[in-house]
Amino acid sequence: MNEQGIMHVPDSKYCFPLEEHSLAIRLRLDRRDAIEKVELVYECKYEIHEKQKCVCMERRYEDKLFAYYETQLPLSDVRLAYVFRIWEDGKGYYFSEDGLSENYDFTLGYFNFFQLPYINKADIHEEVDWLPEAVFYEIFVDRFCIGGHNKDKSYINMEWGGRPTPKSFAGGDIPGITMKLDYIRELGVNALYLTPIFRAVSNHKYDISDYHTVDEHFGTNEDFGRMVQEAHRRGMKVVLDAVFNHCSEFLPQFQDVLRRGKESPYFDWFIIDGDKPDQDHLNYEVFSFCAYMPKFNTSNPRVQEYLLDIAISWIRKYDIDGWRLDVSDEISHDFWRTFRKRVKEVKKDCVIIGENWHDANSFLRGDQYDSIMNYAFTKACLDYYAFEDFGAQDFAWKLNELLMRNTKQVNAMMMNLLDSHDTDRFYTSVHCNKDRVLSAMAVMCMFTGAPCIYYGTEILLEGGYDPDNRRCFDWNTDNRDEGFLEMTKQLLAIRRQETVQRGEIRITSRGELFCLSRWLGEEELLLMTNESDEALQIDLTGEILAANLLQTGEQSERGRISGSLEKDGFVIIRGKKGGCGL
Amino acid sequence: MNEQGIMHVPDSKYCFPLEEHSLAIRLRLDRRDAIEKVELVYECKYEIHEKQKCVCMERRYEDKLFAYYETQLPLSDVRLAYVFRIWEDGKGYYFSEDGLSENYDFTLGYFNFFQLPYINKADIHEEVDWLPEAVFYEIFVDRFCIGGHNKDKSYINMEWGGRPTPKSFAGGDIPGITMKLDYIRELGVNALYLTPIFRAVSNHKYDISDYHTVDEHFGTNEDFGRMVQEAHRRGMKVVLDAVFNHCSEFLPQFQDVLRRGKESPYFDWFIIDGDKPDQDHLNYEVFSFCAYMPKFNTSNPRVQEYLLDIAISWIRKYDIDGWRLDVSDEISHDFWRTFRKRVKEVKKDCVIIGENWHDANSFLRGDQYDSIMNYAFTKACLDYYAFEDFGAQDFAWKLNELLMRNTKQVNAMMMNLLDSHDTDRFYTSVHCNKDRVLSAMAVMCMFTGAPCIYYGTEILLEGGYDPDNRRCFDWNTDNRDEGFLEMTKQLLAIRRQETVQRGEIRITSRGELFCLSRWLGEEELLLMTNESDEALQIDLTGEILAANLLQTGEQSERGRISGSLEKDGFVIIRGKKGGCGL
Repeated sequence: MNEQGIMHVPDSKYCFPLEEHSLAIRLRLDRRDAIEKVELVYECKYEIHEKQKCVCMERRYEDKLFAYYETQLPLSDVRLAYVFRIWEDGKGYYFSEDGLSENYDFTLGYFNFFQLPYINKADIHEEVDWLPEAVFYEIFVDRFCIGGHNKDKSYINMEWGGRPTPKSFAGGDIPGITMKLDYIRELGVNALYLTPIFRAVSNHKYDISDYHTVDEHFGTNEDFGRMVQEAHRRGMKVVLDAVFNHCSEFLPQFQDVLRRGKESPYFDWFIIDGDKPDQDHLNYEVFSFCAYMPKFNTSNPRVQEYLLDIAISWIRKYDIDGWRLDVSDEISHDFWRTFRKRVKEVKKDCVIIGENWHDANSFLRGDQYDSIMNYAFTKACLDYYAFEDFGAQDFAWKLNELLMRNTKQVNAMMMNLLDSHDTDRFYTSVHCNKDRVLSAMAVMCMFTGAPCIYYGTEILLEGGYDPDNRRCFDWNTDNRDEGFLEMTKQLLAIRRQETVQRGEIRITSRGELFCLSRWLGEEELLLMTNESDEALQIDLTGEILAANLLQTGEQSERGRISGSLEKDGFVIIRGKKGGCGL
Repeated sequence: MNEQGIMHVPDSKYCFPLEEHSLAIRLRLDRRDAIEKVELVYECKYEIHEKQKCVCMERRYEDKLFAYYETQLPLSDVRLAYVFRIWEDGKGYYFSEDGLSENYDFTLGYFNFFQLPYINKADIHEEVDWLPEAVFYEIFVDRFCIGGHNKDKSYINMEWGGRPTPKSFAGGDIPGITMKLDYIRELGVNALYLTPIFRAVSNHKYDISDYHTVDEHFGTNEDFGRMVQEAHRRGMKVVLDAVFNHCSEFLPQFQDVLRRGKESPYFDWFIIDGDKPDQDHLNYEVFSFCAYMPKFNTSNPRVQEYLLDIAISWIRKYDIDGWRLDVSDEISHDFWRTFRKRVKEVKKDCVIIGENWHDANSFLRGDQYDSIMNYAFTKACLDYYAFEDFGAQDFAWKLNELLMRNTKQVNAMMMNLLDSHDTDRFYTSVHCNKDRVLSAMAVMCMFTGAPCIYYGTEILLEGGYDPDNRRCFDWNTDNRDEGFLEMTKQLLAIRRQETVQRGEIRITSRGELFCLSRWLGEEELLLMTNESDEALQIDLTGEILAANLLQTGEQSERGRISGSLEKDGFVIIRGKKGGCGL
């Protein structure tokens, strides 16, 4: 056994409550260890010195280095003490807080057993119930659709459909989105994520100068209220972009500091090295190196109150369903903790999604965000589909590794994406290979968490890095690839299967076939993809829900599917749990 | 390289801010790997794609399985991105969020570098500045000293010095402590930790029925106020015991629920399965299985306010310096977060010390406690001195492992103890071997964090498990071992050395000698202990600050100390950094 590879941390993603009387426990071991079984030996912490219960753990996930054993434990007494017993070569080893040992003295266990001493309701990370059912559609507002036909359009400086520059204004707006809600709904989408809509001089509006007013290019607050109402009427949620790390130089508070320096009551709203901000020599903190986006001092309680008030007022006034938090990882945990409390008080099922590109576990313990934009998922898909750094096994390993970064609740609320306004478009990354986009969408739709489609993906909009990834949506239906669009809808429809929304997950590979299985009760949904250089034989049992580049003969009566899955193809079948042939 | 043994987690004890422009970074590797060097490759996250800085990390700690490399980094721009470069066999390997690789593409680093994206002041765990200088003395009040000569003593049911039972009352009180402050001060103690003093029917008073009133057995609130004043006048801090997990059945709120069940406004202050608490069938949650100690529902905001008000009022009214939190691990993180905010608002340097017997890292991230009672240190000392499970190397490894459980700030604030009212007395555990007690005290005094002496340790008070560990202090000076007492004072005096309070630490072994070194600037203090079965030769250079069972010849002019350290002996010398001979 590779002792250095063993890992367990109580009160973490390795041991966390699911509900007040139920928890999940995970143990990590070296994947190569020849383990016979892993047992959890446990009891109430006040009784374990004299008696113990025992349950077998299941080997559920494997990544490149490790295997993860898991069990879910219903408990009446939630004051849990436990150790693991790991069996190798017919011999059981104990694993406690003091490490691996051949024997374990339970009478001294109070010094070194693992424990989850109590499940406090206040510490449970409750799932936002609509999230596992959500399919997001991200809209970069200026580029989606022009709806406000009576508005002053003099600011528009590019032709719809032209190549955008950092300074382009194409004219998309909120009435345009409202007009297209039926279109979006018909794709199978039930949640919108809009890039910022508040007053800002840029086209992207990440430089906000008035957090309480919809930018006039995008319409009015009333237009937005109407859009939310129309979205809700169609069963669609609306998530807005909260830019709280920084603001615009034109925010009145910063303008006051520019004028009055230390005399301004807002001086300590920002982080300034000197008596006055100097925009030429940049003596104040900003987003990246952008002088026009001063960073807020979010450790200042007055700034906190200002931002919290904004967060709450858009929920109260317009009934929005969530906030996506821009540059959230540069803002304090302290702020997000207060943010969560205030937001959830006003609307319990308002989702909080961080923009953390990296492992964000320290923000995802139930006290801050619910989830993040899952850019690590994006990277895994790029490695498999675009960079070709990954074979099927690498891809399966990586997705399992990502699942093991967080609790089950967080995984169920992840916002999974192939691309966004901050990356190259996935279609462009895979060199305009439509089949790979479909296969990647199939993975995204079958994975734990909510898929997020970047506007235009469904019509094969191209685009490299910013600003090219923000091209105008092409509403000319003559230009559409109807086959691709239909397949997109079919995949998003699979997301509506309860088995995909709530089921367990197992990700493996079989030769060069990548396999992702979801199951709930007696039903299993199985996805296979082929990114190898040749067609691969498959032999499965079930009903085909969606497929691309699959050659089969007649399906037999018993649902046997034999055939050949071509390069870049995928198949999703529905069958009996454990009976699909994996 | 044992890839499975590599560990780094940003925004954790592996990467944490020390101040607004400085942070510490640690990397864990298999101790057996033949590593040539470890480098940190870093830059501002918005620039690392085009340039990188590099700094060598120091191998600082070793435990049974791992070696830990550490570096402290001053930064002007605190938006840090980094990867590690690990050198083995002349070849450098990168270690990023995606694991080990031979090459690393910094232009794609935004997907998988490690990062500490910003140091927010609100998230920095600031040291309580008096803690690293503190020497605690824990007093079990009923057994220390009777001072209130005019009080009604009819409750006293045991002779001073007799063997206590769970129901014994010996008469110790707060005026008794006040009387003995000079005695305590002269030991070298500068901080008191008192077990609970509030109204309760038991002798231990962990079953509180009135949190605002000193128990009449112990005196009055005025007596307590006087004691704090007298302690402060002598430069001594006072820490009280906060029993917030549970209360007494006689708490008026619980009595009301007993009478009125669901009709009581306090019904949801407790966790009751049914309409009314049933003390015979225990249908409500309690501490352990004690019907007389109902558990508070600390997820209830009204209970939170009630308890917070208590915590704050004792600081405001009596200027206490800290709270030790009883059964703190069964109370929610959510509660402790609010507790910390409120307490620190009122008195910034009020210390918060949890009673968590286990790895408490999830409570010690700067948002909840400052430190814990370090029972894992206790266990390590028992393994080395009492159970003889540990040799010098095991002991060194274990103490390093404990240091690596938390940040530097937490380590500096740890309350280290050999015993308490909840364990056997250490002197009894080591079968009344005084030399081992002295050696263990030497380790405790030299270790990172504040030593805590359980009352009576200095006079070799004996005692097995509760209630025997709560015997009466023997004030008869005829019974004293003056040599032991003097040595205790000498060791506590060493704690006043700035090098021990603020210096760096390195813990190793040399053969069967256990070695603990502290250094600051050019000065080093070095402790060696011998728990092997025979005398061991030492050859050091410096000035002896304290020693027991050390045989040396004349010390040479150049400060060379050669001699023999007998079994159970120890020596502490002061010398030049790196020149002590280790």
